[in-house]
Amino acid sequence: MRDQPEAERGAEADVFEHEIAVRWADCDPAEIAYTGRIPLWALDAIDAWWEARLDGTGWYQLNMDRNLGTPFVRMAIDFRSPITPRHRLICRTWPCRLGETSITFRVDGYQDGRLCFEGQFTSVFVTASEFTKARPPADLRAVVEAHLRPEDAG
Amino acid sequence: MRDQPEAERGAEADVFEHEIAVRWADCDPAEIAYTGRIPLWALDAIDAWWEARLDGTGWYQLNMDRNLGTPFVRMAIDFRSPITPRHRLICRTWPCRLGETSITFRVDGYQDGRLCFEGQFTSVFVTASEFTKARPPADLRAVVEAHLRPEDAG
Amino acid sequence: MRDQPEAERGAEADVFEHEIAVRWADCDPAEIAYTGRIPLWALDAIDAWWEARLDGTGWYQLNMDRNLGTPFVRMAIDFRSPITPRHRLICRTWPCRLGETSITFRVDGYQDGRLCFEGQFTSVFVTASEFTKARPPADLRAVVEAHLRPEDAG
Amino acid sequence: MRDQPEAERGAEADVFEHEIAVRWADCDPAEIAYTGRIPLWALDAIDAWWEARLDGTGWYQLNMDRNLGTPFVRMAIDFRSPITPRHRLICRTWPCRLGETSITFRVDGYQDGRLCFEGQFTSVFVTASEFTKARPPADLRAVVEAHLRPEDAG
Repeated sequence: MRDQPEAERGAEADVFEHEIAVRWADCDPAEIAYTGRIPLWALDAIDAWWEARLDGTGWYQLNMDRNLGTPFVRMAIDFRSPITPRHRLICRTWPCRLGETSITFRVDGYQDGRLCFEGQFTSVFVTASEFTKARPPADLRAVVEAHLRPEDAG
Repeated sequence: MRDQPEAERGAEADVFEHEIAVRWADCDPAEIAYTGRIPLWALDAIDAWWEARLDGTGWYQLNMDRNLGTPFVRMAIDFRSPITPRHRLICRTWPCRLGETSITFRVDGYQDGRLCFEGQFTSVFVTASEFTKARPPADLRAVVEAHLRPEDAG
Repeated sequence: MRDQPEAERGAEADVFEHEIAVRWADCDPAEIAYTGRIPLWALDAIDAWWEARLDGTGWYQLNMDRNLGTPFVRMAIDFRSPITPRHRLICRTWPCRLGETSITFRVDGYQDGRLCFEGQFTSVFVTASEFTKARPPADLRAVVEAHLRPEDAG
Repeated sequence: MRDQPEAERGAEADVFEHEIAVRWADCDPAEIAYTGRIPLWALDAIDAWWEARLDGTGWYQLNMDRNLGTPFVRMAIDFRSPITPRHRLICRTWPCRLGETSITFRVDGYQDGRLCFEGQFTSVFVTASEFTKARPPADLRAVVEAHLRPEDAG
């Protein structure tokens, strides 16, 4: 898994790309990736975003080591084009809204330059042990703010 | 898997209920069902709806035996309350919109009477072998029309 | 999910049957259930066995409420025949060996009377909070002993 | 996903390593990867082995483009140590037996240098469209023979 922070290249700078090897295991008898796999990949891309931005601290470490959870309250995905194992799936991933206790990510999936899906995923920050809403710590908020982009900026 | 066509009970008549046994396997370290499992369950509920309404013809048989596919173009889910293995998950499932070549399902998941998630799922009808949009056959359209309900009718 | 303790019928008495609705979602482009799905179903069948034998206490409740885990140390599965959505998959499930701190289950999967897979699954009992081996409590041991059968007794 | 053919380094030469980013999504409430995930990863490693050895031709391309399937007839896995998101999971993967119409792979999973699981996976070669046993084509057999190693050679 080679998750690359952005190449610095003008308008596309700062968008994290998470690469997925689509496999036989992911495909249904229509010979394309099963719809239900796609939300799983998009969530993995968001987990990988945190891991890349927080020096190796993904959801697992956030929960276990920092008592911070990010349960989802909404997801919406538009499926634009079928996904197959013929190409890697590149998930362009960025935070596009940060509230007091919530965050929205955009994840757009591409294969061979073609948009396959685009989605928005909103979660709230909680104290993991209590499962109660909480403001995220300052260092986390700073990291998100540094990478915040408009929703259509992918 | 006991998928029951509706009990006939006034306002709630005609809503198919798909029951899911939530398990240890479905839960993450937060001790609740992982978010990514929920779209999979909702899709299973829609597949089970077809199976119940078409006398055993679910997506597999529609594709294999009738050359009819229903790829998804959009899903949107609001997560209202955590899901655990403490109760069965009841997915109330109904078609709420039928276009010329598209259909939208609503799936609402309940545990112990509490709403856990609500979602809309839109797919298009295609000739499976060509993956090209097509009007659904008359018998299928008739079945859907007989069970169509408003989106908020669950 | 209607998990039935055994019908009492002579030689086949006492074998728990866990029923699975195989779906489109489970199939790969070969139009049969993907191999990787089968261990997941067999594990679900074992979880369902506990739930049925312990009045609703499956792995989740064992871990959360009784601080008892059962991590697996070995699985071996022979795949005999392809699995499809054409029939329900019946997983005949029983404990076939009980050691001081370990247990082996046999799970045999049938579709339409034909054997599709047979597997053995061994786990150890641990104190969940410590992840250290421990003898299972007496009530649990008694339940297993009451249902223990030879490995080839399915 | 950076799947590396072997570094050439004496005794360990020629063992393909498939790297997996274990995630929150893969873990259960015991805070380790769920047992049922492990066969899926091992199968992915075998699919990735083919892809690396056949210049991009994994199971999907073998089936779709060359009408060649490899359904599994047996898997056996020993679980040695829990898997967590704290380290990448390295799956050392090699063919250890090649029959007329069958092949056995060994897959050993390591985290941070510690053995987490070891497994054997046997499949048969079939003509995909017929699902009947067939000898593999010469080029495929040559690739396997060039990389065949003893079962305990990982």
